[in-house]
Amino acid sequence: MREVAVIGVGSTKFGEMWERSFRDIMIEAGLEAIQDAGIEGREIEAMYVGNMSAGRFISQEHIGALIVDYSGFSKDTHIPSTRVEAACASGGLAVREAYLSIASGMHDIVVAAGVEKMTDIGTEITVDVLASAADREWEGFVGATFPGLYALMATYHMNKFGTTREDLAEVSVKNHYNGSLNPKAQFNNRITIDTVLNSSLVADPLRIFDCSPITDGASAVILAAGSIARKYTDTPVYIKASSQASDTISLHDRRDVATLDSTVFAAKRAYKMAGITPKEVDVAEVHDCFTIAEIMAYEDLGFCKKGEGGKLIREGVTALDGDLPVNPSGGLKACGHPVGATGVKQVVEIVTQLRGEAGKRQVDGAEVGLTHNVGGTGATAVVHILTR
Amino acid sequence: MREVAVIGVGSTKFGEMWERSFRDIMIEAGLEAIQDAGIEGREIEAMYVGNMSAGRFISQEHIGALIVDYSGFSKDTHIPSTRVEAACASGGLAVREAYLSIASGMHDIVVAAGVEKMTDIGTEITVDVLASAADREWEGFVGATFPGLYALMATYHMNKFGTTREDLAEVSVKNHYNGSLNPKAQFNNRITIDTVLNSSLVADPLRIFDCSPITDGASAVILAAGSIARKYTDTPVYIKASSQASDTISLHDRRDVATLDSTVFAAKRAYKMAGITPKEVDVAEVHDCFTIAEIMAYEDLGFCKKGEGGKLIREGVTALDGDLPVNPSGGLKACGHPVGATGVKQVVEIVTQLRGEAGKRQVDGAEVGLTHNVGGTGATAVVHILTR
Repeated sequence: MREVAVIGVGSTKFGEMWERSFRDIMIEAGLEAIQDAGIEGREIEAMYVGNMSAGRFISQEHIGALIVDYSGFSKDTHIPSTRVEAACASGGLAVREAYLSIASGMHDIVVAAGVEKMTDIGTEITVDVLASAADREWEGFVGATFPGLYALMATYHMNKFGTTREDLAEVSVKNHYNGSLNPKAQFNNRITIDTVLNSSLVADPLRIFDCSPITDGASAVILAAGSIARKYTDTPVYIKASSQASDTISLHDRRDVATLDSTVFAAKRAYKMAGITPKEVDVAEVHDCFTIAEIMAYEDLGFCKKGEGGKLIREGVTALDGDLPVNPSGGLKACGHPVGATGVKQVVEIVTQLRGEAGKRQVDGAEVGLTHNVGGTGATAVVHILTR
Repeated sequence: MREVAVIGVGSTKFGEMWERSFRDIMIEAGLEAIQDAGIEGREIEAMYVGNMSAGRFISQEHIGALIVDYSGFSKDTHIPSTRVEAACASGGLAVREAYLSIASGMHDIVVAAGVEKMTDIGTEITVDVLASAADREWEGFVGATFPGLYALMATYHMNKFGTTREDLAEVSVKNHYNGSLNPKAQFNNRITIDTVLNSSLVADPLRIFDCSPITDGASAVILAAGSIARKYTDTPVYIKASSQASDTISLHDRRDVATLDSTVFAAKRAYKMAGITPKEVDVAEVHDCFTIAEIMAYEDLGFCKKGEGGKLIREGVTALDGDLPVNPSGGLKACGHPVGATGVKQVVEIVTQLRGEAGKRQVDGAEVGLTHNVGGTGATAVVHILTR
């Protein structure tokens, strides 16, 4: 397989953008990535778009075609454009399929984009759309919401490992702090443990500040064959591993409700492919759709032993000035979670960090970065490892 | 890029299956393909699933995870499973991404599946879902339905090239004849020109017998690296080309309303990749969502000059006993059109033909086959060329 590098990144500000359209925000992110890469539009040979549910959010399927058209690539070069979907891991899949299309030798320069416009319909419908990432027949139809399912994981984790309510809150406090340093984050406000503990209960033990928000946003990265990357940039960032794994779609079918085996398997494959161990990771963007998800991610990615995730956040290891900063962008919690865009945004952030261009939230000397994108309650996990 | 072969195929009967579920029909097709290939489930390394709109048809996204789980591959091997979508070309994309994942060297044995369950909701909603393959803001919201858009193409084609109402009907008559020889087709009834001409008007000039039906169904193919294909089968069928192209999502933005430039570009790339000319194709499955679509496909795929598609059907060239049989399966018209499955079913049919296992609808001596899968009104086209 050929080497693949990221040569350009772009992202809209994440947030509630009632005045802007789906296609509008996607184009903004794509143009920023193209300008960042310094390429001509017609050098692009293919496009992959991660999107969870435009069919229900904006009554539009055929998202790949829509985006390639509004990008202006449908008329001259007629490049292929493919939408991929794995719920909240759709963005990660876009990066992975774009990676494969170059690694295979089929293409040289490919865009991986992610987009979701979630605020055009009412919150009640949005909650139902998100529930369609879990098993509709065995979970959704009997009333299980997404926060409800993660609440079960949190309860189990707390009981089994002694993880505390405060540990969960620490994740949110950390990610809000990081978000305050990210001008593109949905939330720039710093919070305290008390903010979380006193916020509205969503699904016991999870409170509103344990949950990632409903967000509009789009992100894009330009990938190129490693052999030509330096023609476009002095700071190519190489994708050393791209892996993906599955688990049961229903939570009740899992080996262990407090473990995402999809993450465990995707991570093992990624470390093997990159030839590194978890200890060599300098900075990571992980899928904190809920605070408990970040704690489980620490464990399932091998950053600590199973059950010690709470200790890791408590001891500040994953803070911006810790040994292994996690979610410098603010994560899904503070940067926001436009579900189809998140997996791509994670790569945008890691590339920005590895280039040393992350400003106030820069992780000093970061050379190896990891992204971890989860679909549903963990039926899909996608892991990428990137290096300078 | 590595060589890739099809080593197993499977398909449900297509039709209205109110008594069966989405997951149920997908598993049936997958198991048939696995049995046909004679492989163990645990040899499968990845899965791609083409599906247009399960989000709206059955309120379920995260289709890749759902299918890999119900296939039993989520617990031991935790293989990656990716849903791809380009409206009615979703199945073609599944085959193409599976192809790329093997050609790249990432995987050795991969399933490409396609599925759609369209009859669980009312026809009115189904029509609206299908309209989401076109430009919702510029076409759907102002009332353009899918038959309406193809009716515009038909009218333009008839005016510009003298294509007749009877030419359109001949496509339907031919495909129903072929469908009568296919036990898995939705319709096995033979019809006459008069059946078509006297059927209900849908969108002038298109009548109900010019339109593909609403269908439930699933299909699957097992792809393997060419180097290992003969371990599993004595009749591997090789994918010599896999190509995809885009056009504008709105019909009104096109260079020519009676030409699918996505097909033109995808076909050119495919012939170049396979190193053949259109004349070398022995049998083809093309995207006849409406009768006019098959006539345009003849032209845009290079089977005849632009404007001569009507002549081709009139002269019987594309009949089962003609020089270039098209849609021996019965096509979308008679075999049925479960939108996410169609592109995979086309590959199933061509493989069956190239193996010489197509029974009463066998095309004598077929050695080179082509599949042509279209999304929307032609914003996406996917072409595969297969050989013995």
